[in-house]
Amino acid sequence: MKEHIAFIGLGHMGQAMATNLLLAGHRLTVYNRTGGRTTALEERGARVADSPADAVREAQVVFTMVTDDEALVELTTGPDGILETLGAGAVHASCSTVAPGTNAKLAQAHAEKGSHLVASPVFGKPIVAATGQLWVCLSGPAEAKARLAPLLLPLSQGTFDLGDDVGAANVVKLCGNFMLGAAIEAMAEAFTLAEKCGVSREQVYEIMTTSLFDSPAYRSYGRMIADEDYKPAGAAPFLLQKDLRLTLAEAREHKVPMPVANIVLDHLTATVARHTSADEDWTSFARRISEGAGFSR
Amino acid sequence: MKEHIAFIGLGHMGQAMATNLLLAGHRLTVYNRTGGRTTALEERGARVADSPADAVREAQVVFTMVTDDEALVELTTGPDGILETLGAGAVHASCSTVAPGTNAKLAQAHAEKGSHLVASPVFGKPIVAATGQLWVCLSGPAEAKARLAPLLLPLSQGTFDLGDDVGAANVVKLCGNFMLGAAIEAMAEAFTLAEKCGVSREQVYEIMTTSLFDSPAYRSYGRMIADEDYKPAGAAPFLLQKDLRLTLAEAREHKVPMPVANIVLDHLTATVARHTSADEDWTSFARRISEGAGFSR
Amino acid sequence: MKEHIAFIGLGHMGQAMATNLLLAGHRLTVYNRTGGRTTALEERGARVADSPADAVREAQVVFTMVTDDEALVELTTGPDGILETLGAGAVHASCSTVAPGTNAKLAQAHAEKGSHLVASPVFGKPIVAATGQLWVCLSGPAEAKARLAPLLLPLSQGTFDLGDDVGAANVVKLCGNFMLGAAIEAMAEAFTLAEKCGVSREQVYEIMTTSLFDSPAYRSYGRMIADEDYKPAGAAPFLLQKDLRLTLAEAREHKVPMPVANIVLDHLTATVARHTSADEDWTSFARRISEGAGFSR
Amino acid sequence: MKEHIAFIGLGHMGQAMATNLLLAGHRLTVYNRTGGRTTALEERGARVADSPADAVREAQVVFTMVTDDEALVELTTGPDGILETLGAGAVHASCSTVAPGTNAKLAQAHAEKGSHLVASPVFGKPIVAATGQLWVCLSGPAEAKARLAPLLLPLSQGTFDLGDDVGAANVVKLCGNFMLGAAIEAMAEAFTLAEKCGVSREQVYEIMTTSLFDSPAYRSYGRMIADEDYKPAGAAPFLLQKDLRLTLAEAREHKVPMPVANIVLDHLTATVARHTSADEDWTSFARRISEGAGFSR
Repeated sequence: MKEHIAFIGLGHMGQAMATNLLLAGHRLTVYNRTGGRTTALEERGARVADSPADAVREAQVVFTMVTDDEALVELTTGPDGILETLGAGAVHASCSTVAPGTNAKLAQAHAEKGSHLVASPVFGKPIVAATGQLWVCLSGPAEAKARLAPLLLPLSQGTFDLGDDVGAANVVKLCGNFMLGAAIEAMAEAFTLAEKCGVSREQVYEIMTTSLFDSPAYRSYGRMIADEDYKPAGAAPFLLQKDLRLTLAEAREHKVPMPVANIVLDHLTATVARHTSADEDWTSFARRISEGAGFSR
Repeated sequence: MKEHIAFIGLGHMGQAMATNLLLAGHRLTVYNRTGGRTTALEERGARVADSPADAVREAQVVFTMVTDDEALVELTTGPDGILETLGAGAVHASCSTVAPGTNAKLAQAHAEKGSHLVASPVFGKPIVAATGQLWVCLSGPAEAKARLAPLLLPLSQGTFDLGDDVGAANVVKLCGNFMLGAAIEAMAEAFTLAEKCGVSREQVYEIMTTSLFDSPAYRSYGRMIADEDYKPAGAAPFLLQKDLRLTLAEAREHKVPMPVANIVLDHLTATVARHTSADEDWTSFARRISEGAGFSR
Repeated sequence: MKEHIAFIGLGHMGQAMATNLLLAGHRLTVYNRTGGRTTALEERGARVADSPADAVREAQVVFTMVTDDEALVELTTGPDGILETLGAGAVHASCSTVAPGTNAKLAQAHAEKGSHLVASPVFGKPIVAATGQLWVCLSGPAEAKARLAPLLLPLSQGTFDLGDDVGAANVVKLCGNFMLGAAIEAMAEAFTLAEKCGVSREQVYEIMTTSLFDSPAYRSYGRMIADEDYKPAGAAPFLLQKDLRLTLAEAREHKVPMPVANIVLDHLTATVARHTSADEDWTSFARRISEGAGFSR
Repeated sequence: MKEHIAFIGLGHMGQAMATNLLLAGHRLTVYNRTGGRTTALEERGARVADSPADAVREAQVVFTMVTDDEALVELTTGPDGILETLGAGAVHASCSTVAPGTNAKLAQAHAEKGSHLVASPVFGKPIVAATGQLWVCLSGPAEAKARLAPLLLPLSQGTFDLGDDVGAANVVKLCGNFMLGAAIEAMAEAFTLAEKCGVSREQVYEIMTTSLFDSPAYRSYGRMIADEDYKPAGAAPFLLQKDLRLTLAEAREHKVPMPVANIVLDHLTATVARHTSADEDWTSFARRISEGAGFSR
């Protein structure tokens, strides 16, 4: 069944996802806070809205994929936000990586209007989004999740249902992004040690991703670390920095020591502070190790 | 071609490997420093030697798989060691996880006697060794490696050739074991955070090993961390502690900062110091995180 | 000149400070959110108010010394808060350890009412407060600071003027408390190492505090760590945990890597999570090291 | 009573100490492995020896102050080492910062020749040595320590007796140098945070060293960190790196987790690896924090 869908937030991820929804035959209205990212979608038939409120006026489902908690809250509950016009019974698929509590609060605001929020963060880089191979974590009301399910088919290779508690999906998303950061850090340390001991980064990369660590994350991020070439950027360092800050905020709230998360965040912080890699992927925080070892490149 | 092979060091790994060599039809002489581990092999046809020197008297190839550098040096160059009787042209496959420099020194001692050492550390738990699915890293003289190649077929699913420099294979082995430790630590932090936030350890485990971290290491070690059940022990905590000490010794020698390696070693050290998990797998250092978070179980 | 002073927040620190203000001859009205802490002060002549608003009705100066940012905001701007009745021109000496931004926001709320806020966090344990030997950091409007100066004489051995920017004093306070935490951690590591190497904790304590680290902080906190006796509590672990969280929040906001602050916070978090030392001093997080080393006591 | 003393190792520390022994009226023979450091002492009346063995031929007491364990072992037990000629009953005051076990082994070698070793590491920079204000830790045979006592008077403001176990003094020395490293790291983090929050490094330095951290170590090292001027070098980064490596070797041997020691060593390692501060004091590893925060200067 074809739906009327709104898509708000057209960064690399959002554009890829919106495109796949269009290609699947849905009627799409799009909105992006800053201009210039709507042309390609418009050419394929999307309507471009003037505001979040405008975008969702006729939509049964609205996807949002924005940078941070603040942007999500603003577009949902702010002036000209989606809650001003979203119809009763409609579903908000909140795909951004935000604090679990943010989706929980917004879910309540939706409930007061008769609409529903499903936390639906995704795993995968823009290129994975483009090929419809994301993994989606879902949490929220069962009916709303069932409503979303067919729409997610052209976007993803699989979904995980985390139950009714709307915060749960973002807990998993934060765990996952932390684990990615930890894997990047571990490879940075191991590859740099190997190089200093006379074994090429490339060889260790090949061996590890062939044997014990034969997984998408190690292959994809490890490739960049082996080559020490962090372009093109799938996502900027400040985004993973934000994710680790959210992770550690949860950790402190719930009293969990996370020493490796601290290290990853410190390295991301140093990377962002030094402004040296604005157009590089977040994986570039791996440089903090090779620089510490005396390499400069 | 069937060879006369000696196998020294019959811990869980050694027994599994020696058994597969026997099953492949080779003539086998075995030796273990402490008694009582030779019965099963003897029943299958192995001869039990009185000393390393006795074990290798007629062997063309000797495998060694022992606990640490000291044991390897002792059995190779000590009294009644293999260099006393090993024939010229014979090959020593040194499978233990030791410092790269230890194999390098022993290789020189071999050279003086006309025999050869190939560093051949393996990746895989005892159960993996039993099914002949190890990964083997090789470094040393090309001819000696070629000589070993057919013997490794029944033991492994693949080999990696790291070149002539005999220390190289153990550099990779140390990198790999560090990366395993880092992955265990990362899962311990992530699963504990999830649990404290109301998402089950099991669910996060399933999601991660289905999507981004769909690899043998994450599945195998993650299983134990999700269940917080660290038995049976594939290898004891003091062994990974030793490996991380070797890793950090290389790191300091070569001036590489390895903050995550430090954390993993500290957690292993605390685990060994507290004697609470003598019969548990090394993965049990993951408890340092859940205990820190206030769980006691 | 004797003033009419209000004092809000009568924990260990507040009681000691309020008592010294009374002894100095000022007219004092006191308030504490939870009951039972006002008797001693009442016997010495203080009036007990029903609310913050009631406490400051006639006061020219109000001191506040409460647990956290939330309590401070509530008593200042909440219902029955001090801004409801505080007179124009009056000065609020905000002594609590809070985020710099919290005092900055409250200063603005004061300005709208014609009153003034001076950030005035203090260094020193309750026993130091009792003897009037605190150190006070001050930031805010010059006139208001001048107004406070004579009142601080019976409380402190010295004051530091951080200028007009009202957030500055709390930046210094957070730096100081972090540095205390770091010193505690360093002593815990050093004393435990010494003990394991056969040198008594006591001896290392004596040597260090006689020579390189002959300072109040090392002597006072080091005493507890040497004895591993963390009673009586000067301040509870959850308070230093809060301070380190505030410190790291500033660090992340301003992009400063603080690896040692991370470690201290993790150890405090583990200490609070395990509920084992509710009536012990915050220094008790030092146990995280001796326990890690296998001691249980 | 004036003695015939030998002094081996004439770095900044050794020269200052030897000069004070000469000024105290003792007869002095000196030796340094590399040339060019003996002129000033020769002009004041010292004899310059050709080798350690030559230096101690007539000496009742020999002081040694060299870079590392290897140099100490070589000059003591190597060819032309002091044990070749040192008389029975003579005392070796071993002042270098070395592993406790190194002095223990050398003490045994002395015992076989009828001479004695007293571990006598010192706290204090070269300028402190020059003014005779060192602190000396002593461990070893009681008689030998008593023999040394009067000789140490012109060198030091105090001594600490750690008992008979010859390794004990160096345990304390390692603890102390680790604690210095931790204090440097803590100030680096605190001062950088303050600066980023708009409070000058200088102000935080003044406040901390006036109040809680009013000690020689904080004043002396803090001065450099506040100014970010690490010249002149009291001692080079590679020396403190060596000390932290020794500290962590003891920690691992004795199963003590030392997370802050790990961080300090990593920062020193990165400092040495980058070769950028060859003529700077070891305190310069503080730059690892300000650089991480985005400053380059």
